[in-house]
Amino acid sequence: MTKRGLEISKQIKGKLSQDPTIFQVDIFHKNVKETLKRIFGGYDAIIGIMAAGIMIRSTCKLLSDKKQDPAIIVMDDAGEHVISLISGHLGGANNLTLKIAKLTNARPVITTSTDVHGYMSIDALAKKYYWEIKNLEKIVKFNKAILEGRKVEIKAPRKLKYLCDDPFFKKSYKLIKDGNKVVKAIMDKDELLIKPRKLVAGIGTRKGVSEKKIIEGLKRTLSFLDLPLGRIDALATGEMKKNEEGIIKTSKILRIPLKFVDLNSLRSKDTYSTSDFVKDRFGVGSICEAAALHVAGEGSRLIIRKTTFNGIAIAVAVSREKVLKSVQQNKTKQKEDH
Amino acid sequence: MTKRGLEISKQIKGKLSQDPTIFQVDIFHKNVKETLKRIFGGYDAIIGIMAAGIMIRSTCKLLSDKKQDPAIIVMDDAGEHVISLISGHLGGANNLTLKIAKLTNARPVITTSTDVHGYMSIDALAKKYYWEIKNLEKIVKFNKAILEGRKVEIKAPRKLKYLCDDPFFKKSYKLIKDGNKVVKAIMDKDELLIKPRKLVAGIGTRKGVSEKKIIEGLKRTLSFLDLPLGRIDALATGEMKKNEEGIIKTSKILRIPLKFVDLNSLRSKDTYSTSDFVKDRFGVGSICEAAALHVAGEGSRLIIRKTTFNGIAIAVAVSREKVLKSVQQNKTKQKEDH
Repeated sequence: MTKRGLEISKQIKGKLSQDPTIFQVDIFHKNVKETLKRIFGGYDAIIGIMAAGIMIRSTCKLLSDKKQDPAIIVMDDAGEHVISLISGHLGGANNLTLKIAKLTNARPVITTSTDVHGYMSIDALAKKYYWEIKNLEKIVKFNKAILEGRKVEIKAPRKLKYLCDDPFFKKSYKLIKDGNKVVKAIMDKDELLIKPRKLVAGIGTRKGVSEKKIIEGLKRTLSFLDLPLGRIDALATGEMKKNEEGIIKTSKILRIPLKFVDLNSLRSKDTYSTSDFVKDRFGVGSICEAAALHVAGEGSRLIIRKTTFNGIAIAVAVSREKVLKSVQQNKTKQKEDH
Repeated sequence: MTKRGLEISKQIKGKLSQDPTIFQVDIFHKNVKETLKRIFGGYDAIIGIMAAGIMIRSTCKLLSDKKQDPAIIVMDDAGEHVISLISGHLGGANNLTLKIAKLTNARPVITTSTDVHGYMSIDALAKKYYWEIKNLEKIVKFNKAILEGRKVEIKAPRKLKYLCDDPFFKKSYKLIKDGNKVVKAIMDKDELLIKPRKLVAGIGTRKGVSEKKIIEGLKRTLSFLDLPLGRIDALATGEMKKNEEGIIKTSKILRIPLKFVDLNSLRSKDTYSTSDFVKDRFGVGSICEAAALHVAGEGSRLIIRKTTFNGIAIAVAVSREKVLKSVQQNKTKQKEDH
């Protein structure tokens, strides 16, 4: 909108582009209302460097529901405050607000009740660990209980023990180990069914890299999303790494299954990153990205693009969200009802 | 929404109720969406103590335009931030945000570009001094020039000299004295016509109160709206005060015309405040309010209700806004067009 706003947006773009969890940042400078209408469905987040009123008036008619809408954030064009307006939890606006505030030295303004009181809402928990909540309509009720200081029980199999190390988790939840494979959140007699999506870390290394360095690299990469190693469901690499001891030992030490992906499958994947060396030699843009996407399955997407450190390249993919379908059906139905 | 939110709303209500520029404060605690739909047109401002997302989603479909919409403000239920969301200038959301922040020790979050850079937009200027802007569509253009550091010329008759004492005015405007009665804002070849509404201070006193005390009382009362004495177009009192020297001298010293209002006219006015003593004796709820309303004319309204200090009661009324009519006609037309 203003010149100063444009300058700030360029700064933010520069900084966000270096973040491997962010895949595309575009700047639109003019025709606020028209531009927002056009781009609304195409981005996970929209950051308006303008008055809150302009942003709200321009997106008002475009809003649909919690599950579908992009994160909407506003920053004043003096860069003093950055405000999470829409889709704080499920859409990730709160986390992105914190990230931008950190990058720009602005003050983050978050208003969702659980957050301001230091609790963790059930939708924030789900968003953080890439869980799907099957009964979205119960979220409000669970969050209300959390706000009243009650602890929600999470019944989960042994392998979800990474939750115990989350300091925010402890204030609002109690983990109960359970043989059942289904994860449940329980409050009074109400149940909320949870399906963790599949998270796969794809690994590419130079020859002879040690498991110690790989594990260090994995931790460092996952830290971009504040994810614990224990949340990773599988490791993946290309078949050409079949004899790399470092990778094999990593899988054994971490007790995370390792999949080798054949060259044809790797080549069938569109990767975000491209290394000329790898492209020339194997015909695939990035082995770690392609391997992660293949093992995460049809419709999966990268959540951390290739990040390299000490000769190790790591990317993380997440399987497709399946709840979405039923929500979209509802949405279509609602539109027809009008 | 939450218990803590309800508590904060009660605190704010208690504090705002003591402010003579505020006439009614109501708390609504449940059924956010339904309640907002019902009350939307009936209040000058709505303060949501809840997540910004809930407030935006609940009022989105109700928004109309800058000129019509109430101020919309959000405060998180820990009372940390208070955020001006909608109608920052014309609707007064920014000023109310600052007021609430002061009352509750919250941090005010204002995002309108002129404000964050310390400029005064043309609509903020108009709002502050109860001016009507005849060409609303030019506001954006004028504000853009102000943001670029250019000074807008205000051509005004001698009596608007109170503007010179406004420190915020000086950064964005240049006052040019002009014999013409019409006030104009000028930038390049663009003109914006301005019509100051009539401001009337109604006075009631005990017998024999001095002009010095009355002038002190006037200043104190006007300070609730940060208005200068020079902005007052007329003083008003009841005919029973015809021989009060203090009131008469006040008018002479300040060079503001004084009108005496007859008892029948006073009785025809609905006042906000009621004094049993005055009611019993004259059949009118409050002389200062009734006199101010009568002199400000048909359709006028109080902007400061009766405030008493040292035996002096003062209220301020403003004449009806006349631009509104044409805007409402446009609005009706737009609706018909749909």
